[in-house]
Amino acid sequence: MRICLGIDPGLARVGYGAVSESESGLRALNYGCIETAPSMTFTERLLKIYTDLQEKITSSSPDFLSVERLFFGRNTTTAEYVYQARGVIMLLAAQNNLPVVEPAPNHIKLSICGNGRADKLTVQTTVKDILSLDEIPRPDDTADALAAAVAGLSF
Amino acid sequence: MRICLGIDPGLARVGYGAVSESESGLRALNYGCIETAPSMTFTERLLKIYTDLQEKITSSSPDFLSVERLFFGRNTTTAEYVYQARGVIMLLAAQNNLPVVEPAPNHIKLSICGNGRADKLTVQTTVKDILSLDEIPRPDDTADALAAAVAGLSF
Repeated sequence: MRICLGIDPGLARVGYGAVSESESGLRALNYGCIETAPSMTFTERLLKIYTDLQEKITSSSPDFLSVERLFFGRNTTTAEYVYQARGVIMLLAAQNNLPVVEPAPNHIKLSICGNGRADKLTVQTTVKDILSLDEIPRPDDTADALAAAVAGLSF
Repeated sequence: MRICLGIDPGLARVGYGAVSESESGLRALNYGCIETAPSMTFTERLLKIYTDLQEKITSSSPDFLSVERLFFGRNTTTAEYVYQARGVIMLLAAQNNLPVVEPAPNHIKLSICGNGRADKLTVQTTVKDILSLDEIPRPDDTADALAAAVAGLSF
């Protein structure tokens, strides 16, 4: 059995979702979303992401991480903060001695739907079906993290 | 006495420089440059920055950090990696319970030379004089970190 912890990086919300792959197929283990409040300082938010995500790594014991690549257009202020949060996530990979795969959004869509341009709802519905979940996990960040994990297992 | 640890963020090179301010003026304490080799994986490089910079924080016991703001033009691939490294540096601030000031490059120039558009060599020469150093510290990243510290102390 292999376990991949998928992560959808962000500053306000970091989605995470652990998926195991065995002979009986794929199964969602723990998943959810780490949230940091805008009332916190930027460095406090990074520390919360670091601390909470370390807990999720410890509890899900993944074999590797799948951390979605980021793409930004001209919104560089947001990019600046989200990339710094992503750095904290990547640091945790090294500290836990875990390999990382970094699927791009279109790679995740292609891997899950067979179409690199699938819309968000199609990806999420397909992930729900693949993992036999009752409903699409909320918020989007959680569903996106599970999608990253499923795509990560196809690497 | 107040001690500011200035940091010039980067992935290949992170400059650091601790400067103390007392009644007798400004004094450079330890300064230098943390380097990570391109042969290392990205996450290993982040871990080296994290580990080495924590050592510098411990040994210089700063009251606060001055972490230079980054500005990138269109070179977004470099920006992506450098911002992630900067996230690790900002995490260390929170873990060490240190306040952070984030001077922009033109603020540093203005603070040190009285001119926000001063050229690099003028800034470095002025920093050398202010801190009574025999020569401009090398590489540039080290000199830039000391400049960030001096500017940080003026906040």
